Amino acid sequence: MSNKKVGIVGGTGYTGVELIRLLSSHSAVELAWITSRSEAGKPVAEVFPSLRGVTDLIYQDFGDDSLEMMSQTDLVFFATPHGVAMKQTPNLVKNGVKVIDLGADFRLQSLEDFEHWYQHVHACPDLLKKAVYGLPEINREKIAQANIIANPGCYPTTAILGLKPIIETQNAHFALTQEPLIDKRIIIDAKSGVSGAGRQGKLALNYAEVTDNFKAYGVDGHRHLPEIEQGINLFLDSKIQHNIRFLPHLVPMIRGMYSSIHIGLTKAGTQIDWQQKFAEIYQNEPFIDVLETGVFPETPIIGLSLHRKSHVPSARLPGAPKTSPSPGF
Amino acid sequence: MSNKKVGIVGGTGYTGVELIRLLSSHSAVELAWITSRSEAGKPVAEVFPSLRGVTDLIYQDFGDDSLEMMSQTDLVFFATPHGVAMKQTPNLVKNGVKVIDLGADFRLQSLEDFEHWYQHVHACPDLLKKAVYGLPEINREKIAQANIIANPGCYPTTAILGLKPIIETQNAHFALTQEPLIDKRIIIDAKSGVSGAGRQGKLALNYAEVTDNFKAYGVDGHRHLPEIEQGINLFLDSKIQHNIRFLPHLVPMIRGMYSSIHIGLTKAGTQIDWQQKFAEIYQNEPFIDVLETGVFPETPIIGLSLHRKSHVPSARLPGAPKTSPSPGF
Amino acid sequence: MSNKKVGIVGGTGYTGVELIRLLSSHSAVELAWITSRSEAGKPVAEVFPSLRGVTDLIYQDFGDDSLEMMSQTDLVFFATPHGVAMKQTPNLVKNGVKVIDLGADFRLQSLEDFEHWYQHVHACPDLLKKAVYGLPEINREKIAQANIIANPGCYPTTAILGLKPIIETQNAHFALTQEPLIDKRIIIDAKSGVSGAGRQGKLALNYAEVTDNFKAYGVDGHRHLPEIEQGINLFLDSKIQHNIRFLPHLVPMIRGMYSSIHIGLTKAGTQIDWQQKFAEIYQNEPFIDVLETGVFPETPIIGLSLHRKSHVPSARLPGAPKTSPSPGF
Amino acid sequence: MSNKKVGIVGGTGYTGVELIRLLSSHSAVELAWITSRSEAGKPVAEVFPSLRGVTDLIYQDFGDDSLEMMSQTDLVFFATPHGVAMKQTPNLVKNGVKVIDLGADFRLQSLEDFEHWYQHVHACPDLLKKAVYGLPEINREKIAQANIIANPGCYPTTAILGLKPIIETQNAHFALTQEPLIDKRIIIDAKSGVSGAGRQGKLALNYAEVTDNFKAYGVDGHRHLPEIEQGINLFLDSKIQHNIRFLPHLVPMIRGMYSSIHIGLTKAGTQIDWQQKFAEIYQNEPFIDVLETGVFPETPIIGLSLHRKSHVPSARLPGAPKTSPSPGF
Repeated sequence: MSNKKVGIVGGTGYTGVELIRLLSSHSAVELAWITSRSEAGKPVAEVFPSLRGVTDLIYQDFGDDSLEMMSQTDLVFFATPHGVAMKQTPNLVKNGVKVIDLGADFRLQSLEDFEHWYQHVHACPDLLKKAVYGLPEINREKIAQANIIANPGCYPTTAILGLKPIIETQNAHFALTQEPLIDKRIIIDAKSGVSGAGRQGKLALNYAEVTDNFKAYGVDGHRHLPEIEQGINLFLDSKIQHNIRFLPHLVPMIRGMYSSIHIGLTKAGTQIDWQQKFAEIYQNEPFIDVLETGVFPETPIIGLSLHRKSHVPSARLPGAPKTSPSPGF
Repeated sequence: MSNKKVGIVGGTGYTGVELIRLLSSHSAVELAWITSRSEAGKPVAEVFPSLRGVTDLIYQDFGDDSLEMMSQTDLVFFATPHGVAMKQTPNLVKNGVKVIDLGADFRLQSLEDFEHWYQHVHACPDLLKKAVYGLPEINREKIAQANIIANPGCYPTTAILGLKPIIETQNAHFALTQEPLIDKRIIIDAKSGVSGAGRQGKLALNYAEVTDNFKAYGVDGHRHLPEIEQGINLFLDSKIQHNIRFLPHLVPMIRGMYSSIHIGLTKAGTQIDWQQKFAEIYQNEPFIDVLETGVFPETPIIGLSLHRKSHVPSARLPGAPKTSPSPGF
Repeated sequence: MSNKKVGIVGGTGYTGVELIRLLSSHSAVELAWITSRSEAGKPVAEVFPSLRGVTDLIYQDFGDDSLEMMSQTDLVFFATPHGVAMKQTPNLVKNGVKVIDLGADFRLQSLEDFEHWYQHVHACPDLLKKAVYGLPEINREKIAQANIIANPGCYPTTAILGLKPIIETQNAHFALTQEPLIDKRIIIDAKSGVSGAGRQGKLALNYAEVTDNFKAYGVDGHRHLPEIEQGINLFLDSKIQHNIRFLPHLVPMIRGMYSSIHIGLTKAGTQIDWQQKFAEIYQNEPFIDVLETGVFPETPIIGLSLHRKSHVPSARLPGAPKTSPSPGF
Repeated sequence: MSNKKVGIVGGTGYTGVELIRLLSSHSAVELAWITSRSEAGKPVAEVFPSLRGVTDLIYQDFGDDSLEMMSQTDLVFFATPHGVAMKQTPNLVKNGVKVIDLGADFRLQSLEDFEHWYQHVHACPDLLKKAVYGLPEINREKIAQANIIANPGCYPTTAILGLKPIIETQNAHFALTQEPLIDKRIIIDAKSGVSGAGRQGKLALNYAEVTDNFKAYGVDGHRHLPEIEQGINLFLDSKIQHNIRFLPHLVPMIRGMYSSIHIGLTKAGTQIDWQQKFAEIYQNEPFIDVLETGVFPETPIIGLSLHRKSHVPSARLPGAPKTSPSPGF
């Protein structure tokens, strides 16, 4: 089987550079081109010295030939802000090119939700329901067949993966007993590193403003809330209607994300061996590492002793019985 | 009125050095002595160069003359780990010396709780109920009269002050209607800077281990939980028995603490103007700054534009209606 | 004596906010107004929450009445980028208002140097030599009389103060012996925290770009070099023509500056007790703290045990004899 | 060719964990065992969660069987503090086992220097001159043949690699003209991240003490100075006797090292195209990346856009002519 020819639209952000790094060493991919208006003509390795020796690509601006050039590819990634992918996706798909959008254009299947939360008229609302939500732990087979793949938001990834074993276990229990395992209210107290805000110059992201500073933001509402709700209700098909509270915070660290998900267990819920459920449901998932009982996740990718290679949802339930006082502060 | 003569036992930690800084410039205090076994004989300003020009004191070790020397003081601060203050307090109090313990020896009024959570036999259990919990927003008058003052833990301070306007408003409402304003479950998702762990050499506090690392700890139970429960039930005298979940996290920042307190409002609770309640109840409190609607707290004391002088509980309730999507990530 | 009426032009940067903080508690100053085009109409304390309770001032935009409004003040500070102060200073001075420029407009007495390094035509070149370089350790009396005061650059402050005892001692020795005490070449290897770049949104200052990153910059030449050379040759009046190499670096820290100044001692130079010279020359300087032999400076203002109140040039000469191996890495 | 059987003595430090990571994926190596007294019996992946799925090894304590067990290996790495490798190396070498010491025991060929700087009696001084200094850019062929390899110190690596093209070019020039290309004095102003101090609990490495703190240390002398001098004089065989000044600093960052090497060029030295010399001499070195003219190194391995895979000495000479003022601070 010959390699897939792949292109990237907008490769100067943090997601773009990671994509280049991953695709450059992917044995089934030929990374054919990468576009950037601002850096057109410059070698990628000049903008990102970390890619010296990894790629020889030069940023291009296809201008008016955009559709023609892109159509000579098997697959196009959009590593762009919302509003870009939606304009080009219909024509690309017509020409037989698959699209993976790292942005938000195809994440929400509800047009109303999209337009409310993004304050943007959608260019191809009819395609929303044809897009597949690109979380392999939920949609692996559909992703393989899809023409449009919507890469999940960062917070929704942590929330949906953290809740999947719980909601699925509850669904199974509910089918038999008509009883829930957890309370209606689910609280997702989430914390993000700074790179989540993208590679941009902005006073609020200035080193001197961020360091030694922890804060909540988006307290009045955050775009990732409807995406989380969609994940729980639609993709995990929750039989119980949960009331979800999502509060994001900014942590003075480069990258990583940590969601503390607070649920209350019903009496039936306390009978479940949740550690076992998490281990079972994720046992064959290469991107997920279920830690053992009593071990809790940490975010480092940079720390010398702790850098991880994968998402690390904790299998420890907050509602688990308290057994021993922890030492220290 | 002449100045109060004050001494500090154990002044080489982060609380000790802050205490020296505050007391050195206090117009009604004469800071008479400070002890340290490990640094005895050294000037304080040699150990803490930031205190050059602030104090000329030299660390002392009173040895066997401890009680005699300390008794020539009006007030003794203990800036020591738990287990130290309890040994000397009974004799000091007998000799008419007041004691303020920055440690945990007198924080819990229940002997059983103390011994369970600290795994330490208490040296003077009869004094536990005579000690006054040193939170001025709750006990200002009692503190002025007390002989033994138990300085509150860091997390309990954020929890009790954050909940005080809520519990008091609910108590008043309950007296009239027998109805609660908030749900039974209260979730305190708390985040601390590294200095909270004290001034010590420990691998887990090494810069290379902490940087770019966010994590929960004390998940199985933390000593500050019973202190928070005591604050809500005893000091705030909650008429409703709340189920409190407390989860602490370590943030890669030097100091500051941020507690996101999640409560659910009952129907009656949604009728209250909570911003107004917070503003009213704290209007004359010099250490508390209630931010205006839509403004949220940040932790910096070091940031150039943001350093604050006081505790900053947010008056914004998490359960408040969401009115607008926030931009950004 | 009545208070001086003072105004600040451009008070939204890091120097502006420090200035507000210092002037607000200055007993001989009435801070009358502060301008900002971008924030006009907003309370200062809204933009900088750390100033809540410190000042009630509201940012103003004087527009066409600028000169008239400013002239009702005794003294105007410019906390603006270069090019602003030079336009308004001539008229202010004519109207009897003193000017202190925190920017670079009046730092270089040579018009040629200014125009070469700042690539800006100077609006009032005749005033350059009337301006007094505002380093009190060098110009205390002149500053008290001056109408135009040029606040020194950050790097030049460290270089000139670090070298003053050396150059003055050498000048005295040279007058007697015609011999130098140090080699011709002086190397200033300087390191700055991020706030030195100002309060601005810029990709290069983004937290994710700066953290865990140390780097030299301005390697081809930096505007502070001519200011350092002017300080050594003109203000310290060096009798020897030194060859100065200045290399700035960016450190991942909020603020602070550290200059390691490398000099070589001549044989005569090794006979001098330099520690003693530094101590003598700076003994009455309130902003300078000469550390004792064997103690070296650190930058923290935020660290709990180390925050300092003043510039801390080290009196330890790099060329001093090596006496003992230091343990560790 | 069958795989080499390799063991690691002391694998719980930062060098140990990197070694495990590298050797685990090395196609010609079988990592047979790893020892640790403190962690004996624990899986490596429990101590370092980042190695989950990378290695199944369990820390061992060979006790009295140490020599016997180790001798069944082709090669033993010592990732231990100085003083450990020297005790076991003679017997291992006798038994035909090769040794690579990541510590300092075999770095200095002069016994006198070792004992002066490390204050430690050497256990096998006769082996010092048989050890090969393990810097491949200097000793690649000797390393391949050696029985004892002394892994270079961190600072000496930056200094020797940074100076190699300069010293070699000068040597060639000197052979023809008897003239130097650079001044006698070489100043190495070096900066290290915190992990250089090792994986240990120590107050001076506590996050709260290190953050926002930049400082020189080892000002009176540092063990890496004799190793740097040995590199210049012995390994690079400098025909000129240089006067080397080495000043290390601690940077608040996890890892990375940055040495600004200040040299003065003689008139002949200014005629050399140094960029070209660096590029030539390092053109085939896989671990060295000579940046292009006008590009300067940065340290990030963690930054999203900047993480590098190799040592990055700058080919830009500090003495190069200044051509343009740089903008900014």
